[in-house]
Amino acid sequence: MQQQKDLFAHYKQPSIKEDSYVTGLKLANSLKGSELVPFIPINGRQVNFYYCGPTVYSNSHLGHARQCYCNYVFRTYLGIDVIRRTLRDYFNYDLLSVMNITDIDDKIINGAKSANQDFLEFTKVWEKDFFSAMEALNIELPDVITRVSDYVPEIVTFIEKIIANGYAYDSNGSVYFDYFQFQIKLQHTYPKMRPETNADLLQEGEGESQANKQSEKKSPNDFALWKASKPEEPKWPSPWGEGRPGWHIECSVMASAILGNPIDLHAGGIDLIFPHHDNSLAQAEACFNCDQWINYFIHLGHLNIADRKMSKSLKNFLTIDEVLKRYTPRQIRLNFAIHQYDAVMNYSEEQVEQAISKDKAYQEFFQNTKIYLRESQVTGPQKWTQNDFQISNLLRNTKQVIHAALLKNFDFPTVIDAIDKLINQVNVQIAGKTVRAPLVSSVVQYVNFILGLIGLNYQAQNSNSSDIKSIMAEVCSIRDQVKLAARKGEFEAISNIVSQKQFQYEKNLSNGIVDCINQFQQLVLAASQEKNKQQLFQLCDRLRDEELFELGIKIEDKEQASIWKQYDPKELKLEREQQLKLIQQKELLKKKEEEKKKQEELEKLEKAKVPPKDLFISQLDKYSEFDEKGIPVKDKDGNELSKKQKKVVQDLWDKQNKIHNQYLETLKKQQQ
Amino acid sequence: MQQQKDLFAHYKQPSIKEDSYVTGLKLANSLKGSELVPFIPINGRQVNFYYCGPTVYSNSHLGHARQCYCNYVFRTYLGIDVIRRTLRDYFNYDLLSVMNITDIDDKIINGAKSANQDFLEFTKVWEKDFFSAMEALNIELPDVITRVSDYVPEIVTFIEKIIANGYAYDSNGSVYFDYFQFQIKLQHTYPKMRPETNADLLQEGEGESQANKQSEKKSPNDFALWKASKPEEPKWPSPWGEGRPGWHIECSVMASAILGNPIDLHAGGIDLIFPHHDNSLAQAEACFNCDQWINYFIHLGHLNIADRKMSKSLKNFLTIDEVLKRYTPRQIRLNFAIHQYDAVMNYSEEQVEQAISKDKAYQEFFQNTKIYLRESQVTGPQKWTQNDFQISNLLRNTKQVIHAALLKNFDFPTVIDAIDKLINQVNVQIAGKTVRAPLVSSVVQYVNFILGLIGLNYQAQNSNSSDIKSIMAEVCSIRDQVKLAARKGEFEAISNIVSQKQFQYEKNLSNGIVDCINQFQQLVLAASQEKNKQQLFQLCDRLRDEELFELGIKIEDKEQASIWKQYDPKELKLEREQQLKLIQQKELLKKKEEEKKKQEELEKLEKAKVPPKDLFISQLDKYSEFDEKGIPVKDKDGNELSKKQKKVVQDLWDKQNKIHNQYLETLKKQQQ
Repeated sequence: MQQQKDLFAHYKQPSIKEDSYVTGLKLANSLKGSELVPFIPINGRQVNFYYCGPTVYSNSHLGHARQCYCNYVFRTYLGIDVIRRTLRDYFNYDLLSVMNITDIDDKIINGAKSANQDFLEFTKVWEKDFFSAMEALNIELPDVITRVSDYVPEIVTFIEKIIANGYAYDSNGSVYFDYFQFQIKLQHTYPKMRPETNADLLQEGEGESQANKQSEKKSPNDFALWKASKPEEPKWPSPWGEGRPGWHIECSVMASAILGNPIDLHAGGIDLIFPHHDNSLAQAEACFNCDQWINYFIHLGHLNIADRKMSKSLKNFLTIDEVLKRYTPRQIRLNFAIHQYDAVMNYSEEQVEQAISKDKAYQEFFQNTKIYLRESQVTGPQKWTQNDFQISNLLRNTKQVIHAALLKNFDFPTVIDAIDKLINQVNVQIAGKTVRAPLVSSVVQYVNFILGLIGLNYQAQNSNSSDIKSIMAEVCSIRDQVKLAARKGEFEAISNIVSQKQFQYEKNLSNGIVDCINQFQQLVLAASQEKNKQQLFQLCDRLRDEELFELGIKIEDKEQASIWKQYDPKELKLEREQQLKLIQQKELLKKKEEEKKKQEELEKLEKAKVPPKDLFISQLDKYSEFDEKGIPVKDKDGNELSKKQKKVVQDLWDKQNKIHNQYLETLKKQQQ
Repeated sequence: MQQQKDLFAHYKQPSIKEDSYVTGLKLANSLKGSELVPFIPINGRQVNFYYCGPTVYSNSHLGHARQCYCNYVFRTYLGIDVIRRTLRDYFNYDLLSVMNITDIDDKIINGAKSANQDFLEFTKVWEKDFFSAMEALNIELPDVITRVSDYVPEIVTFIEKIIANGYAYDSNGSVYFDYFQFQIKLQHTYPKMRPETNADLLQEGEGESQANKQSEKKSPNDFALWKASKPEEPKWPSPWGEGRPGWHIECSVMASAILGNPIDLHAGGIDLIFPHHDNSLAQAEACFNCDQWINYFIHLGHLNIADRKMSKSLKNFLTIDEVLKRYTPRQIRLNFAIHQYDAVMNYSEEQVEQAISKDKAYQEFFQNTKIYLRESQVTGPQKWTQNDFQISNLLRNTKQVIHAALLKNFDFPTVIDAIDKLINQVNVQIAGKTVRAPLVSSVVQYVNFILGLIGLNYQAQNSNSSDIKSIMAEVCSIRDQVKLAARKGEFEAISNIVSQKQFQYEKNLSNGIVDCINQFQQLVLAASQEKNKQQLFQLCDRLRDEELFELGIKIEDKEQASIWKQYDPKELKLEREQQLKLIQQKELLKKKEEEKKKQEELEKLEKAKVPPKDLFISQLDKYSEFDEKGIPVKDKDGNELSKKQKKVVQDLWDKQNKIHNQYLETLKKQQQ
């Protein structure tokens, strides 16, 4: 433990100044071995934030769009999106966030060659693909997008400064970072975030094309800042000849170009921690001759599929399009928010089910509270009872728990848990109509705010226009009346119910409902004239399950009067499909279990058929002599059985005797 | 100054504890003579907040609904609504807010009598009326609504405790607060917030029916906690006989019943500060035997109409319904937010114009940025230029200014000023397309957040469905093509343009647009066959100014291609009416000025007609002798004029000579 701490002794925690904005937030800082460190931005509420964006390319064998980004998009960028929203919307920091696009890279050069494209044409395609995935998942854009290809002159200047400061050298048209020089200066440490890294590992992390460049380096630990160009590669002019930037240098340069030095917060996937992030730190510190370029470095955890790292060969590869076909963006976001951002996450079908059921619970909570608030008149009784005090206390307690959880390195699993408990209690009180509406409003407002941090919005689709409110109230009422009259066989009355009103198109209304109700009325009229009760019920069901359902409206039949809820039609359909799939899965499981049980009973029956007398008689490999009941007395070698052995065979004989008698009994009964 | 401070020496500022939530917010605390005092809630982020609600009644001569609440609703409740949203949504406090409904009161009893209603029936009507006004203005409900009629038993218990503590006495079936007892106890002060109040004033503030009860009191400064019932008044049992609560006691009791003691924050209209609020404080401190029941007391300023206090007799009475007919809720809210909540506010038509033009500027900002973001591809150039750095710095600076302003007693005038400056700069950059889209997004997000604190939402109506996006793109394109072809006289081409597509109803689309475009196409086809250019242009104008306008869609013709914006149809109509009215007003003003000018010229002409010779000749009350040119030489008493006097008349004569000659010149010209 003592040793662990010493490894991060280089870290200088920002101190609190007079104008500091102190919220109590603590971050798992990789610069301090993932220890929770109080977050103090340099200037008041301002947070300068840089995070590593994607390398925009695709391997040719991954033909399908959006495949190569799924790990990053799901885990890294969804995670960062939630962190950004929380910093801004919950803690009220003033964020300026920068994300880079790596569009110069060995993999890109190879990919463009294979595709026979100019490398910038090639990257444009994959960048667009990346952003479309971000948009589909409702991930907000950063304030600033920096492409490496836009910053090559700045990179050259940056490298020149590192050389001037004595921390890099050119060699054969390339420039290398001078590990030895950097280390002997006492104030510099490398690698800061993986101080335990041994010499072998230090030599990794260079692009493959650098493997044979060892001879150019002073030390095997040195890494490339600038790479001399090879034929047919994209190249830029520099004081060291034509070439292109190394991978690590881009982030140091672009982050500094927008955010300066020092920078409050840096984030990225955990797999980038070494060498990429450690090298970025070293480069910037070498350029600015400073001790600490980044104050807080956080890392998003791995995504494993079915307990293994995602891999095409393991067939556990997840693609964004596939996932988006099966789940709504909300369900996906929720699934990832259930897991602490910096922990390893295992993705599996079963575990998505949990997110689906949570999503449904939230959806129903907002729908049910909306109906409750729609029906509760503010002019009704308002005096608080014990129930109100209880819910109010629970709400306050929830707020405290969530505040503490968010302060603790964005602990969203705890946040979601607290929200679930709150919702459960409020649901109970709403069902019993034992809580005042204004208090319910406050709970709804708060839950909506907190789920908004995860990027979930259940309220948008929830804001019915007043037009739809009035027409749906009529639709429900007509349908309820038809059902009641049909039950009583009052067909005459039905004619009146459905003939009273012809619904008209409204300019600002989705007119599908008007079509539905008019058609429903016509068909009901015909059925009532034929006195066809069954068809009337079928029409009522169809209106609910098909026509209105298609429009995103769900009618729920209640004892008193039916209620209606409005959803996104696409989501409603997907929800039905998911439910159907779940039912099918359960049925399959049930069937399998029944078959297993049948098989077991069959085996049991076969066993019971054997009379106790015949139980041991065939086991001549074990016994050589039996008594008149067929119980063994001597083993295969002719020795008398021991007392203990005798007890065992006697017990087995008794048991067989019992089940065989039961069998005979059953047989007798069947014959009677 | 020194003396002023001594008057509020009783105030104990809450101290910062380890778990205190310190934001830096300062409030103008009436308990400290409106001094700005750091706001420190008792328990972490929790703020217990009570504010005085309305007395629900109407004078019979104010027949019109919602009249009697306008002052409170506009100034007090709108103001409190903004404060609540700011505390919750900006500062992230955990608010529990309570508002009372006064439904027992002299005025109510009189009103109910006049209306021949049970007093609770009577108050229910006016309470509903009050809440409907709140809803119309988008004012959020408090978490808890407490009606006095629900809390009479609690009031009795509370009074019993005050008596037991020795601070009140019963007299002739009524109970009075014992001013002398309360004051001689050194730790108590009364009245805390108006310490300069003299003895005469202290005796005010009781209901009129109490005027003749002086004999029951020990001191004229004592005020009623419980009033013995008079015949035909509503009454409740008590240890002192049947009666009803005094006015002031209700707030002490109901606030404590929900929020306990001490309470963080109390608010109300400035007119309630004495005696109501001071008495509330004294009662609660007498009951709990404590020094400070409320830690922060803030007061909302007066609303004057045209520089005078609102009054029916002055005909400067503002009713909610009238105001809502003339302005949108957004315009009204903005108008009140422009003024510091605790300052006196003068309402006038001219000053509402300012809010209207601000509202329009915000609306257009959100519309224009939406179109900009709709058209900007994230895949386009992203490298920051000086413009981006400038806007980013301005945004950060704006955030700092607004943060400081909000900390300073919710200084929204400064907030709105800063937002206006930001918007102006961004508009310029957008028009020149010289700023990156992601940065514009961030500005939009922030402006929306801040305006949300005032309860303004421009984004809701701004979220066009994808259906409307695609159909409107087609509508604009067809209309642009028709206009271009008509200008060139290519009538054949027009037939093709409008015959290519028949638009179909969409289930989830407002189908008014489909009707519009189909009808437009038919009419255009007919006009193109008749080669009627003028009619084609008229049809294009009508589609823009009438049909689509009715649906809330505004087309703006631009040099390249027309653009469309979607609004709330009602707001769009109101906006047009307001513009029309403004134009009419301006025309009227212009006409008046023209008439005035004409009149002046006429007078000038009349004056010029007089020959200089005749100028003084009739002024015999001044002069008695003239020279041959008609210039006076002696005054009325026959004395020679002084040198100075001679100079004056000579100058007047010269001037008249000049204008008369000009007149003769003009006359001559006209005759030629």
